[in-house]
Amino acid sequence: MKALILALTLALTGTAHAQDAATAAALRDRALTDPTAWQLVESLTTDIGPRPVGSPQMARARDWAVARLTALGFQNIKVEEFAKPSWHRGPESARIVAPYPMKLNILGLGRSPATPAEGIEAEVAVFRTYADLLAAPQGSLAGKIAVVNQSMARTQDGSGYGAINPARTAGPVEAAKRGALAYLVRSLSTGDSNQPHTGAATYPADAPHIPAAALGVPDADHLERLAARGRVRVRLHMAPTVDANSVAWNISGEVIGSERPQEIVVIGGHLDSWDPSPGAHDDAAGIAITTAAARLIAGLPRRPRRTVRVVMWGSEETGGSETAYAAAHKDEAIVVASEADFGGDRAWALRLPPGSREHPVMATAANVLAPLRIFVDTLPATSGGADVAGLKAAGVPVFNFRQDGSRYFDLHHSADDTLDKIDRAQLNQNVAAWASLVYLIADSDIDFRALGAAAK
Amino acid sequence: MKALILALTLALTGTAHAQDAATAAALRDRALTDPTAWQLVESLTTDIGPRPVGSPQMARARDWAVARLTALGFQNIKVEEFAKPSWHRGPESARIVAPYPMKLNILGLGRSPATPAEGIEAEVAVFRTYADLLAAPQGSLAGKIAVVNQSMARTQDGSGYGAINPARTAGPVEAAKRGALAYLVRSLSTGDSNQPHTGAATYPADAPHIPAAALGVPDADHLERLAARGRVRVRLHMAPTVDANSVAWNISGEVIGSERPQEIVVIGGHLDSWDPSPGAHDDAAGIAITTAAARLIAGLPRRPRRTVRVVMWGSEETGGSETAYAAAHKDEAIVVASEADFGGDRAWALRLPPGSREHPVMATAANVLAPLRIFVDTLPATSGGADVAGLKAAGVPVFNFRQDGSRYFDLHHSADDTLDKIDRAQLNQNVAAWASLVYLIADSDIDFRALGAAAK
Repeated sequence: MKALILALTLALTGTAHAQDAATAAALRDRALTDPTAWQLVESLTTDIGPRPVGSPQMARARDWAVARLTALGFQNIKVEEFAKPSWHRGPESARIVAPYPMKLNILGLGRSPATPAEGIEAEVAVFRTYADLLAAPQGSLAGKIAVVNQSMARTQDGSGYGAINPARTAGPVEAAKRGALAYLVRSLSTGDSNQPHTGAATYPADAPHIPAAALGVPDADHLERLAARGRVRVRLHMAPTVDANSVAWNISGEVIGSERPQEIVVIGGHLDSWDPSPGAHDDAAGIAITTAAARLIAGLPRRPRRTVRVVMWGSEETGGSETAYAAAHKDEAIVVASEADFGGDRAWALRLPPGSREHPVMATAANVLAPLRIFVDTLPATSGGADVAGLKAAGVPVFNFRQDGSRYFDLHHSADDTLDKIDRAQLNQNVAAWASLVYLIADSDIDFRALGAAAK
Repeated sequence: MKALILALTLALTGTAHAQDAATAAALRDRALTDPTAWQLVESLTTDIGPRPVGSPQMARARDWAVARLTALGFQNIKVEEFAKPSWHRGPESARIVAPYPMKLNILGLGRSPATPAEGIEAEVAVFRTYADLLAAPQGSLAGKIAVVNQSMARTQDGSGYGAINPARTAGPVEAAKRGALAYLVRSLSTGDSNQPHTGAATYPADAPHIPAAALGVPDADHLERLAARGRVRVRLHMAPTVDANSVAWNISGEVIGSERPQEIVVIGGHLDSWDPSPGAHDDAAGIAITTAAARLIAGLPRRPRRTVRVVMWGSEETGGSETAYAAAHKDEAIVVASEADFGGDRAWALRLPPGSREHPVMATAANVLAPLRIFVDTLPATSGGADVAGLKAAGVPVFNFRQDGSRYFDLHHSADDTLDKIDRAQLNQNVAAWASLVYLIADSDIDFRALGAAAK
């Protein structure tokens, strides 16, 4: 009798799996020609433009998000406001003043303080690597503008960015500790354009704060060559401001589950961007991929058993959404969470929560994803994206589609992150991957927490 | 007796040809590893930087040129000054003000007038092509900022530039004639960067003058998409100045001929550049290629019979050197002239003066160039470069090495025309081509004028 029940259960489960696999494959194939993701990227970049936190454009982006989620048929649409001090770029410029005048291509780093109104003019001290700067003794940069010209490795998985990131984030404070008046970092870029790439710097309250900006890559090389010949003086002006009282919003819409609506699969992207471009890859693409995927799931004849929630996080670039989101949703039964925040180029692998790779539902997922040339990585996901870091810290399992980052850092945080760089076929490949995987998870009873605990 | 003399002459000529061919081939092979061209580009871009006419940097470039020609052993070094009014970029900016604020990436065009101090703010009228602008009726652009967003074709021979050039040079006046307050043109670029590409516009005295600037390519597309949705207002500020009393210099050095020094082969590049970059490809490369080639010739055990003169023209970008040079040298016996002004990428063909392709000396040249993968074009040269246009108009024959322009217009006239874009192997391939061809011409008695006259 026990054996009979088991056999029956397995047979029914098998049938359910087979149906789900067929549905997931159909979703995948439909996604490849679905126009929604492209329409969303096109509209967000064109109708709204750049979306820095605390700007009027960000408020327009919020309204855009609500209007789009409504028009696409999402349920339970929410706008969750949170306090978020914001940094605003002002006029800024830099130039070589000696041995001869030459304009430098710069972008101030997020959170940088302003220079005095008359600017800062000083001799530069150029370091080929960030480690060279760290090796400079205390006081050795007194009266200087420190320049770090370490180049960034081009990698498929974007790991070159992590390797160089401290040069931008921690560099200003490290230079200041050694006496520097200001800090210039070679743009964290894999390209050879003089277009500078911005990004946030970190200014701990107990550390000295100096103005900091990113240099165009050829200009950084130019400074290094020139400084090797003799003294080079640079003048820097920056007049950013801070609004301590601004707010941001996490916005969400749902495809409410048919059987277990309280169990939620959280996916999304971030709505904010840096100011020099409309942020097509960072992260209009992620917004578009996840929204289009969820909408395809909503369009099925039978909704999945669990709820799929799309979140458009409101403050990724200088942080804030991840904490606000985790705090506001700490009591929910979030099954798994993941953010698409690595542009619109194709996914090549999937990293799953620990212990779940061999589960039949994930084996089905691997099979559905294979024709997209996506494999399931043997390593588990270590991050689900910056905006779900708060959820992850609170114990929510995460997954991660690994996307091709080969050209992402040619564009990222620069004036070149524009719509023309979006490849529609690659964008839709991502939609297909998300739609099929998220559907399979949402229509299953897979318990990533239990699998993770068992795997320990 | 007559037959004997002819046979003897042919035999001696044959021997001379064989010796010359061997010398040319040796020059060619030496050039491929010669460091001089790279050293010149590196120094001109790094030690001098951007070199706009009328700037202190241009005066420093003049001194650099004299010092380098001296150090490299050139003879008869001359600095020929001529009057050249100069245009100087001032502060400039452009931004969308409605439907939302967005900074636009611009570079004012050379010779553009300034805007009023308060700027110009107006609705844009966007044209997909320059022909569409020309089709607009008189008065139809009254009170508007005209925008032309025609894209440029990428071509090996650079012909895409010629095809689009009127949109930049004549566009401002054509827009003004139709009532426009200002003119923005999509950068004449084959790239997809938001880095704008400047260049000169033409303002005939009897036409209305309005401010004009080049837009970054993605920004131009952005404006077109936005304008298709409704009214778009843009604000433009430009404050360039003109110095009516400035001067420029054509600088030259010679390898004086051993037998017929009064017969001169004129080669060179232009020393001036646009201001946004140190002009590595435009035209430090041309300076370097021709100077390095002439120096290799000077280093031969026996100097060629005719004089080889390297000229560093002092005002190509907004014109002037070609007229000054032709006027100053109208009484000289210039055998042939050519300028290297298409960057540092490899040469793939040679165009010769009419009627000279079958001459034995040029047949030898074709054979020496063949291992460099350069062929002699069946079409004759129609231009020898902008700076020898005055000589050509005065009847001087010209030749032209056709260089690969596939990526030249990604960089040209923008902040991206920097040293890192120079490929040393391709640079030296050009040196090899110039050294061997120029040597063969200079050591021969080939008379391009007579051959051209006979070919008519």
